[in-house]
Amino acid sequence: MGRVTERRRVIRIRDGAVSTRPDTLVAEEPMEIRLGGKPLAITMRTPGDDFALAAGFLVSEGVLASAAELANIVYCAGATGEGGSNTYNVVDVRLADGVPVPDITLERNVYTTSSCGLCGKASLDAVRTTARWPLDTSADTPVRIEPATLSALPDRLRAAQRVFERTGGLHAAALFTTDGELLDIREDVGRHNAVDKIVGRALQQRRLPLSSCVLMVSGRASFELVQKAVMAGIPVLAAVSAPSSLAVDLAVETGLTLVGFLRGTSMNVYAGEHRLALSAAASTD
Amino acid sequence: MGRVTERRRVIRIRDGAVSTRPDTLVAEEPMEIRLGGKPLAITMRTPGDDFALAAGFLVSEGVLASAAELANIVYCAGATGEGGSNTYNVVDVRLADGVPVPDITLERNVYTTSSCGLCGKASLDAVRTTARWPLDTSADTPVRIEPATLSALPDRLRAAQRVFERTGGLHAAALFTTDGELLDIREDVGRHNAVDKIVGRALQQRRLPLSSCVLMVSGRASFELVQKAVMAGIPVLAAVSAPSSLAVDLAVETGLTLVGFLRGTSMNVYAGEHRLALSAAASTD
Repeated sequence: MGRVTERRRVIRIRDGAVSTRPDTLVAEEPMEIRLGGKPLAITMRTPGDDFALAAGFLVSEGVLASAAELANIVYCAGATGEGGSNTYNVVDVRLADGVPVPDITLERNVYTTSSCGLCGKASLDAVRTTARWPLDTSADTPVRIEPATLSALPDRLRAAQRVFERTGGLHAAALFTTDGELLDIREDVGRHNAVDKIVGRALQQRRLPLSSCVLMVSGRASFELVQKAVMAGIPVLAAVSAPSSLAVDLAVETGLTLVGFLRGTSMNVYAGEHRLALSAAASTD
Repeated sequence: MGRVTERRRVIRIRDGAVSTRPDTLVAEEPMEIRLGGKPLAITMRTPGDDFALAAGFLVSEGVLASAAELANIVYCAGATGEGGSNTYNVVDVRLADGVPVPDITLERNVYTTSSCGLCGKASLDAVRTTARWPLDTSADTPVRIEPATLSALPDRLRAAQRVFERTGGLHAAALFTTDGELLDIREDVGRHNAVDKIVGRALQQRRLPLSSCVLMVSGRASFELVQKAVMAGIPVLAAVSAPSSLAVDLAVETGLTLVGFLRGTSMNVYAGEHRLALSAAASTD
């Protein structure tokens, strides 16, 4: 509980000089997510916001879409480690009466087809068909964002990263309004966990879908992160670094605005440019 | 097959100027690993070295330890995508006669205990008890490495990263001798995949255990990466960025030399300092 950082002894070498001192590290612990008592997934995460992490994970998997569908989340009382104390590493999610418990795979964040033909296309289709809040794809989208607003986000993200300052070991995800106002920020050893925590907190606060928000991540944009944005109804995902091919394909397929290499006044827009206020006059090919 | 990068259209914004051009992205595709025809794990990976990835994954999981234990690896012939062509995204590993097929969990890289008490300690114990080649922990270790040799590795890693240059979207893992000679380098959208490919190629080339090697990774050192080094018998893991608490704990428990924040002539040594040639005179506390 609250073990976001831990202290360990470290030997520092600086230009040949050797010294020993305590160092602050980001905490990493396994967490098992159970659904109705049945083990569903295990993730290595930074402790904290564990119920939000579980809820957000289930939003990403298409199991949960609102707080009303959630009965409760508890730490598994029998989950005791050394000395018999609760490890706080096993959480059990109970869905509200009548909410179907889907037959989701035990694999974390992966879509399998029933046939042998596993391919990127099947992964795209699986997200598109399970998304509860399809993103708008028309030119008269209600969500418009200025490139200058996006350019301001990385500095705000870094300014809000508290644990990273001390450990250098964390990925961050932050939720902004389309005006650039910071709504939430989470840090975790795993990028996907940071996003799950953001989405799970939004579900707990009955703010899903996040249809007028921008999700910003500190690193790269993978298929998995695009999937999580789409499943939470977030129309804009911005990343400091590069996206993968499948991330771009999923963004194009679902209508997500995907921005990469967001640095200074530069950025690359890979999909969903209809939400960006661009001056057409400047466009060249 | 060989789809390490893909081209996509991108809208570039630079100081308000907008242009459209093709961009090179790192390829990301799902890959399913089967063991004797039975689905075992799915990972999102950059295509290429797929058999090595499967073999290395199984080394990390304690299933494989030598090429002799491996009968063969094939692409699943029935794995067809659109148009009926093979997706090359499903590989089937067959173990040699007499090699036990363990009851490993479907979860990727995660250890569960039979009881409810999931905790970091159980994760550490699981790796320690399944490692085929325990690392030496005595002061007269046969592996000695100079800090100056380690300091030279990041530049060599970056110089050898070919795809990163074009896409900015890849993690790298490289294998060096204790004299700093580059033996192998792999790039992937997933850090764990890059390491699995390194280890799998070593298995294919009958070079396991990698007991006189240094593994260098481009990012942070998680529990999972320490696990992979230990399972391949690699005594030294160096990372450009920070380790997590559980990564340090596993390194201490197994005797791995774990170096983080390896930058310029500076580095932090979190465990296994008996393999580093340090001048005791300079040590302070």
